Amino acid sequence: MADPRFFTRRGPFTLEGLASSAGARVATGTDPNLEIVDVAPLDAATGHDISFLDNPKYLPALAATKAGACILSEKHVPRAPAGLALLVAPAPYVAYARIAQLFYPPSRPRPGVAPSAAVDASAKLGKDVAIQAGAVIEAGSEIGDRTIIGANAVIGAGVVIGADCRIGAGVVLSHCLIGQRNTIHPGSCIGQDGFGVALDPKGYVKVPQLGRVIIGDDCEIGANVMIDRGAGPDTVIGSSCWIDNLVQIGHNVRLGKGCVVVALAGISGSTQLGDYVVVGGQVGIAGHLKIGSGAQIAAQSGVMRDVPPGMKMGGAPALPVREWHRQTVAIAKLAAKTKDEAGQ
Amino acid sequence: MADPRFFTRRGPFTLEGLASSAGARVATGTDPNLEIVDVAPLDAATGHDISFLDNPKYLPALAATKAGACILSEKHVPRAPAGLALLVAPAPYVAYARIAQLFYPPSRPRPGVAPSAAVDASAKLGKDVAIQAGAVIEAGSEIGDRTIIGANAVIGAGVVIGADCRIGAGVVLSHCLIGQRNTIHPGSCIGQDGFGVALDPKGYVKVPQLGRVIIGDDCEIGANVMIDRGAGPDTVIGSSCWIDNLVQIGHNVRLGKGCVVVALAGISGSTQLGDYVVVGGQVGIAGHLKIGSGAQIAAQSGVMRDVPPGMKMGGAPALPVREWHRQTVAIAKLAAKTKDEAGQ
Amino acid sequence: MADPRFFTRRGPFTLEGLASSAGARVATGTDPNLEIVDVAPLDAATGHDISFLDNPKYLPALAATKAGACILSEKHVPRAPAGLALLVAPAPYVAYARIAQLFYPPSRPRPGVAPSAAVDASAKLGKDVAIQAGAVIEAGSEIGDRTIIGANAVIGAGVVIGADCRIGAGVVLSHCLIGQRNTIHPGSCIGQDGFGVALDPKGYVKVPQLGRVIIGDDCEIGANVMIDRGAGPDTVIGSSCWIDNLVQIGHNVRLGKGCVVVALAGISGSTQLGDYVVVGGQVGIAGHLKIGSGAQIAAQSGVMRDVPPGMKMGGAPALPVREWHRQTVAIAKLAAKTKDEAGQ
Repeated sequence: MADPRFFTRRGPFTLEGLASSAGARVATGTDPNLEIVDVAPLDAATGHDISFLDNPKYLPALAATKAGACILSEKHVPRAPAGLALLVAPAPYVAYARIAQLFYPPSRPRPGVAPSAAVDASAKLGKDVAIQAGAVIEAGSEIGDRTIIGANAVIGAGVVIGADCRIGAGVVLSHCLIGQRNTIHPGSCIGQDGFGVALDPKGYVKVPQLGRVIIGDDCEIGANVMIDRGAGPDTVIGSSCWIDNLVQIGHNVRLGKGCVVVALAGISGSTQLGDYVVVGGQVGIAGHLKIGSGAQIAAQSGVMRDVPPGMKMGGAPALPVREWHRQTVAIAKLAAKTKDEAGQ
Repeated sequence: MADPRFFTRRGPFTLEGLASSAGARVATGTDPNLEIVDVAPLDAATGHDISFLDNPKYLPALAATKAGACILSEKHVPRAPAGLALLVAPAPYVAYARIAQLFYPPSRPRPGVAPSAAVDASAKLGKDVAIQAGAVIEAGSEIGDRTIIGANAVIGAGVVIGADCRIGAGVVLSHCLIGQRNTIHPGSCIGQDGFGVALDPKGYVKVPQLGRVIIGDDCEIGANVMIDRGAGPDTVIGSSCWIDNLVQIGHNVRLGKGCVVVALAGISGSTQLGDYVVVGGQVGIAGHLKIGSGAQIAAQSGVMRDVPPGMKMGGAPALPVREWHRQTVAIAKLAAKTKDEAGQ
Repeated sequence: MADPRFFTRRGPFTLEGLASSAGARVATGTDPNLEIVDVAPLDAATGHDISFLDNPKYLPALAATKAGACILSEKHVPRAPAGLALLVAPAPYVAYARIAQLFYPPSRPRPGVAPSAAVDASAKLGKDVAIQAGAVIEAGSEIGDRTIIGANAVIGAGVVIGADCRIGAGVVLSHCLIGQRNTIHPGSCIGQDGFGVALDPKGYVKVPQLGRVIIGDDCEIGANVMIDRGAGPDTVIGSSCWIDNLVQIGHNVRLGKGCVVVALAGISGSTQLGDYVVVGGQVGIAGHLKIGSGAQIAAQSGVMRDVPPGMKMGGAPALPVREWHRQTVAIAKLAAKTKDEAGQ
């Protein structure tokens, strides 16, 4: 059970109620009125908990579980121990996620403006907005209904944030327009100047950055993510993108919808990603490239050319993964041969 | 045109006025009194906008532009469509940057101390300083004339900041002396303890970090840049350095003037860079090295040895770029050969 | 001498007093009552300073030093110039660290709550706690005796921090339990949601993150370190860990005691490190791996498999260092051969 100092549990719920919320069905022979009080992993669950089986490597844990109920796919039903109540779902982990959300909905601070927050008189606050202690809301900004602005966050002049967003503590936003239902975790900075510099014999000349950052809906943006605003065009993050911690996104970059960018990756200026591109951790992508929809870039790769849609790439400089693996194997063989020849 | 919620445009300006500010000249046959109201890219500009041509790959856009005026180099004058007003400059992008600065000077908050800022009575504030909401200015610090301290920034005890600096929201400064006209973007932390640890059989012993961070003039320091203070000597950033987001600079590091460090790079303790060194994104440089003036390090390289002045390096471990490319080619050939032999 | 704007020096101390604090002994022929007023490097020290020799490459500096006293190991005693007072210690750098701590103990703000801090009425503050300007202490949190909460830091609801901790300016803590004597440098975010997402044809579904972050005692956590809370299990940082700036630690990761993680490294979700593991700068470690106690991972490596205890690894994908070096040599030879054949 989650630590009650940090998490407030709802429920109990009947299996039938859980099934309908999660897009699952109650298995034949399972009592739909069984009451469930919590979620737990297979190996820690007890009689009133619901667990899930997604990865078949946990089938032994299924056989041994003391859970009261389990979510699994049709094909694993015969593997469940007798007497275990079952919910059947095509994607058990998704169903688990939905059920866990029912038991543990995100906590909400009470609406209102904390006394130590500084809200400019010209800012527009929607219904039931919560502005937490020390937050600063500058002139002309707009905060959508039910959006939460975390403690000591700074919402710059003119910034527009849609409804039902969660802006973490210490976040700094400027020059950006943000849609609905986005979560931005603590410490992220969005909308500052990009790296715009013109080289001059007498020194560097700063190029004014005249664009914005535009973020769609339903994005999850990690902690300490840096997204620079556009230089003239905008920097655009499509809807439903998931961006992990400590990611760098340069000016004019465009992400389509549903892109996933893992921690410590950097996407250089003016590069465009299609939809559902996956960028692994610590990947670097050079500037002015096009990465096609559905492409996947392995962790730590260095992408220096355009990537066609659906292509899986790896290595630095990045290659199609088959070629990358072939190179890795060839190098290993070469080194082994050298070793043999040397009699080492 | 830049979004008026975020940018305030000045002007109009005559071509002659723009030319003289930008170090350009009005071309023969162009009306020097033509009024220009905005800047825009070649493909989006309309009759009262000025655009620029720098990269010859945009010559077709020049031919088709609807801009009222264009900045270009002497050699491209014959390629301009008839009737387009022209400013001639040796470095058109630099001239554009200067003109864009005229139309869009950085916005300035009104001078003064926000009511929710906490300024220690012993701090010295220069003329027309702006201390924004929630900022904390600790004892004995000094803020130069016209410098702006962003919302919720923290200026630690004894820190000295010169005139005309812009310190972003949420920046944390301690143990540092900062020159004039520097911009530090949001979330950066400068002057904290470096990674100073002595290994002892009974555990790690912290080595007091007794130096400072010294920053010259005219630097641009990105968002969430970490610069640790010196261990005894100082950490030094020369004038006119450009540091991108999420860069790590260890204790005792010295950067000469005009160095450029791209996002997610890390420079380990006690390493010294000469002047105008360029460090690519995600580069790692080991500690206690000397990187000569004018050296350039390709993105994602790992530098483990001293680099002579002017040398271009790439790869991990980093090599002169010619050798690095030769290795890349040799590996590709080897893998192709293996493939042929296997009949794959 | 350290800049008095930032550092307050204690002392003077007698050599005998310093020796007993540092686990050193006064050498035969050295006056134990000699008064020392400061620490300094060999080449900058003057007659009332104490210096140290650890790395033999500084033996010439020892010969030439003007220091009043020097800490060194037994074997280097004969190399000291005549008349130099000597402290003998098995690990001179450790002894120096202890002596430097005596002269320059970390500064402490006056205890108490700054007027602009926002402390929830239900928070429990220990004895002599200092809550600096603009800090936010949310409901139900507990701050141990003598702990310092830096300016504009945010301590989330229910967070527990032990005694004698130093929480830097702008730090954001949530969902975490932190032991004693930990230092967390500015800008770090600990306890936010990990990257928990279930893939669904209709979009991504967020998986509630129901664990915490548990940190032991005596840890040093750098600036802008991101530690996500567990998904169900906890994320655990053992005692005496040293974590450098800009490090990413994913959900459910476990570090044993005494681990060292250098800047810009990323450890993916559910990976477990034993005790005293050393992770170099910019290393990436994939998820769900076990890294044995005492393993050492060279900078920029990419670890994709379990690592046995005590193993030294390097490269991407990471190999035992001997194999990694063999590959590096084999590639260099291959490229040289290609060059010869081409007559280049």
